[in-house]
Amino acid sequence: MSKFMNPALSGLETYTPGEQPQDMKYIKLNTNESPYPPSPQVLAAVNAQEAADLRLYSDPESRALKQALAARYGVEPENVFLSNGSDDILNFAFLAFAGGGPDTGRKAWFPDITYGFYPVFTDLHHIVAMQIPLKDDFTIDPADYCSLGADGGMICIANPNAPTGLTLSLKQIEGILKANPDKVVLIDEAYVDFGAQSALPLIRQYENLLVVQTFSKSRSMAGARLGFAFAQAALIEDLETIKFSTNPYNINRLTNAAGIAALASDSYFSENCSRIMETRSWTKAALEELGFTVLPSAANFLFARAAGLSGMEVYRQLKAKGILIRHFEKPRIADFNRITIGTREEMETLIEKIREIIREV
Amino acid sequence: MSKFMNPALSGLETYTPGEQPQDMKYIKLNTNESPYPPSPQVLAAVNAQEAADLRLYSDPESRALKQALAARYGVEPENVFLSNGSDDILNFAFLAFAGGGPDTGRKAWFPDITYGFYPVFTDLHHIVAMQIPLKDDFTIDPADYCSLGADGGMICIANPNAPTGLTLSLKQIEGILKANPDKVVLIDEAYVDFGAQSALPLIRQYENLLVVQTFSKSRSMAGARLGFAFAQAALIEDLETIKFSTNPYNINRLTNAAGIAALASDSYFSENCSRIMETRSWTKAALEELGFTVLPSAANFLFARAAGLSGMEVYRQLKAKGILIRHFEKPRIADFNRITIGTREEMETLIEKIREIIREV
Repeated sequence: MSKFMNPALSGLETYTPGEQPQDMKYIKLNTNESPYPPSPQVLAAVNAQEAADLRLYSDPESRALKQALAARYGVEPENVFLSNGSDDILNFAFLAFAGGGPDTGRKAWFPDITYGFYPVFTDLHHIVAMQIPLKDDFTIDPADYCSLGADGGMICIANPNAPTGLTLSLKQIEGILKANPDKVVLIDEAYVDFGAQSALPLIRQYENLLVVQTFSKSRSMAGARLGFAFAQAALIEDLETIKFSTNPYNINRLTNAAGIAALASDSYFSENCSRIMETRSWTKAALEELGFTVLPSAANFLFARAAGLSGMEVYRQLKAKGILIRHFEKPRIADFNRITIGTREEMETLIEKIREIIREV
Repeated sequence: MSKFMNPALSGLETYTPGEQPQDMKYIKLNTNESPYPPSPQVLAAVNAQEAADLRLYSDPESRALKQALAARYGVEPENVFLSNGSDDILNFAFLAFAGGGPDTGRKAWFPDITYGFYPVFTDLHHIVAMQIPLKDDFTIDPADYCSLGADGGMICIANPNAPTGLTLSLKQIEGILKANPDKVVLIDEAYVDFGAQSALPLIRQYENLLVVQTFSKSRSMAGARLGFAFAQAALIEDLETIKFSTNPYNINRLTNAAGIAALASDSYFSENCSRIMETRSWTKAALEELGFTVLPSAANFLFARAAGLSGMEVYRQLKAKGILIRHFEKPRIADFNRITIGTREEMETLIEKIREIIREV
């Protein structure tokens, strides 16, 4: 840290992205990317004319893309927020709805085991992080979020949760919304298209609901940086205020064009989601056959524990064999690994390599 | 504002981007975009293969692009920071080097007439904005920045300044750096390639110098969102800490590829800068012939005042005739307009329309 750094930010623990080693070509099952390219319409939208137009600023209001999302999801453009990936939206939401510095005593509640970026945001914005332990079976108990008092602040729940892949039902989420009329309830639906129920239909009734989604996973556009959120107009306006106070043009022109094209290829999108869910079923069964405990996932990854091998050991040996999976060396989950669902062929290779590892023990 | 918004952020005045009206096709001389497309290499880099690879996350460290920038500018990769446009870097710098909330009493100093985003950042981060008036001739007096006391905080100077286009010399900037060893001095060089001297050579000697540049103007990539900064490694590390605490993947894959390709086409870049400077000279002389007062600009815009017509009137009448320029209805500069340098043909049309307006008065 330089001597110039704001002392309030000293000791910031940054987010650790999944590793991207350059030493050899790996089968990448570690960052929940899609194994399929974006749709042919997206490939066509990223063309020489769009590249030539890079000389011009993007539309800071992303009107065309907002309209396309509103039409696709049956809401009004005023209910849609867009930003540079869903991380960006999460950051803005923590700042807007749970921030204010330690003196105001505002807080954010989220599970102890969830997306690793939430505690980074609370650190950054000096928010008290109220981490609520998952139950022993790694599920979220909605009751834990229904007696938090009448203070303001934000509840942040990934549904499906990461890295477990487990879900809450719409009814359970509605219970949390009803119990917390003075808190924003952010439902982070990065993985919702792989089998969970979206909370989107609840935004009409609940002014405290913010639903966050992304083009990164189910729409095969992790590298394009495009996240979106749905809520009643007042919450969206607050997020726009933050965006227009930091970086109004943060979605570039090519990503805008790609996003519109991706929405126009809805059957391509839903077929990919189905393929990934099928491959997930196959992989889960194959892992269980090899003695793994595998949580029932509604995401594009599995959270799995080997019998008789530590999570770190499985991770290390697979890496040596050219397959990257994600290991979190953390209490309660150190025996598990998070495995992204790739193509069927990639998952067959994974199972083969795990079989080798088990034989070699 | 919703009832959920952090009260510390109430009354935030957001940045107002240049207008982008959709009612008709305008000659856009209002947002300092380049009239020329990115280089042929950039067009070639944005291709179907890159679009297909959008399924993968971008490299959060942007190693290849950092190396290309380091090589081009004669520094080490550890001296380079990259983010989603230079606005993003400015935001991070205000947070890192001038922030800390009102209780720590940290401050940021900048001219009263300059890039309109600086006071937005001080508002957002609860920094005391110490605005120093430009002199009557709109120049910055370096002496004003050399007796600010030994407190920490940040000095932020656009060089060339916006919307005036006026510059400080390297020697004047060095004087400010020497006088403020406990403050970060951010030199915002968004327009430096059109005729000003970059402060980059000073980073070896001054640990408090942060030089910020962008691909948006001279490299014709406003719509790609790519800003970069140079400083000693310690300052760069602090900026990386902020980036990895907010949105590590914020440069998308296509922009990364476009940035590398743009750096490989350096003669295309310098020829465009020369053409724009030539057109600027021609336009300045033509405006002066029509009775305008025009500041000597080292940027890709002119700051000009008509004789006998208010700035607002010139702006309005040009808009009615299909030409957008930028008007700031603010004290001291309300008689002026900022006019982006377009192609020679666009500037000839501008002069013709202004001649009509003068005839019609």
